[in-house]
Amino acid sequence: MRIGELSKATDVPVPTIKYYLREGLLPAGELSSPNQASYGDTHVRRLRLIRALIELAQVPVATVKEILESLDADAEPLHEQIGRAHRALTPTRRLSASDDARAAATTQVTGLIADRGWSVDPEAPALATLIDTVAALRSLGQDNLVAHLDTYADAVERFTQLEIDAVTTNPTRDQLAESVVIGTILGETLIASLRLLAQESISAERWKNR
Amino acid sequence: MRIGELSKATDVPVPTIKYYLREGLLPAGELSSPNQASYGDTHVRRLRLIRALIELAQVPVATVKEILESLDADAEPLHEQIGRAHRALTPTRRLSASDDARAAATTQVTGLIADRGWSVDPEAPALATLIDTVAALRSLGQDNLVAHLDTYADAVERFTQLEIDAVTTNPTRDQLAESVVIGTILGETLIASLRLLAQESISAERWKNR
Repeated sequence: MRIGELSKATDVPVPTIKYYLREGLLPAGELSSPNQASYGDTHVRRLRLIRALIELAQVPVATVKEILESLDADAEPLHEQIGRAHRALTPTRRLSASDDARAAATTQVTGLIADRGWSVDPEAPALATLIDTVAALRSLGQDNLVAHLDTYADAVERFTQLEIDAVTTNPTRDQLAESVVIGTILGETLIASLRLLAQESISAERWKNR
Repeated sequence: MRIGELSKATDVPVPTIKYYLREGLLPAGELSSPNQASYGDTHVRRLRLIRALIELAQVPVATVKEILESLDADAEPLHEQIGRAHRALTPTRRLSASDDARAAATTQVTGLIADRGWSVDPEAPALATLIDTVAALRSLGQDNLVAHLDTYADAVERFTQLEIDAVTTNPTRDQLAESVVIGTILGETLIASLRLLAQESISAERWKNR
């Protein structure tokens, strides 16, 4: 199909498609004549992925590029490839907490991971974020919430098992990797919005006379 | 304490504290002389909350102001007050999906909420975000993930019950509201980082030979 048809199929304006082509987010079409390119289903899928990343998940263009490069790196072993995409998706947020709170958080988090038998790279950015968050919660006097870390981990493990099963059904490596990226980002929004709705409902019930 | 001591106690630089005072994020200290103000424990706690919101949760200053105003609105019933803070925390992300995907998502989400007996305001921004996310997942061909929405809701309900119990132990309304705000935002980071670690561990195991 031509660029105008690609625009119609994906609801992405032609200038935006041209911008993605220039930025290397979208692979060039096949030249059907010296100044006419032709696009296919892979372009439609890629454009939908780019839109989901940029518009819904609000991932910056540079990170989108990193994720797509990782998806296209066919030579890498699958787990490495997924790991690279994963890292590009991990928010790196740092909050300075007191040394005591950070030490206590590190002990609690490493204990949790050992107890659950998770095999996690000590350099994983999500590990640093988790420790920072626990330390911040402790510094802010939210020990009640931190006490339930194991319950959070337990609930998270339940749906993560299902997520991995669900994406593993993808027939090709490319589609599997794409599912991981989409699932990681949109799954986070899914869980966050379900949590807000559950909080609204449960707190309305619990606090109606307070 | 004086502003220099407040800075030491919270590790927030004096110019930043002055900026928060000017922006009305931090209430003015008590004047101990015409050009000397004195600060107390409420300022320390409030500064820690502001830092957590801005640095860890990356909430924009204008939203922080909205959240703090909601916390300070003592006259409101508790549930309303919490609701206002909650809405300020809800990401409003919109993704256009196909009409079919959106209709299917609306049916699925409203069915889920009815089945679970959740009482949710039809205007809640989290509801729109949830429907959008499900619609986007469907448009992107991730029906496998969407099929597990009920499992996600189930897991989320488990830790939300505990969260509400944990924050309900707060003796005062102000502290309860503060716990809700901190717990809502930092809890999201906590869950997201636990999920990334669980994904890393489970997928390493599952895909090691792929």
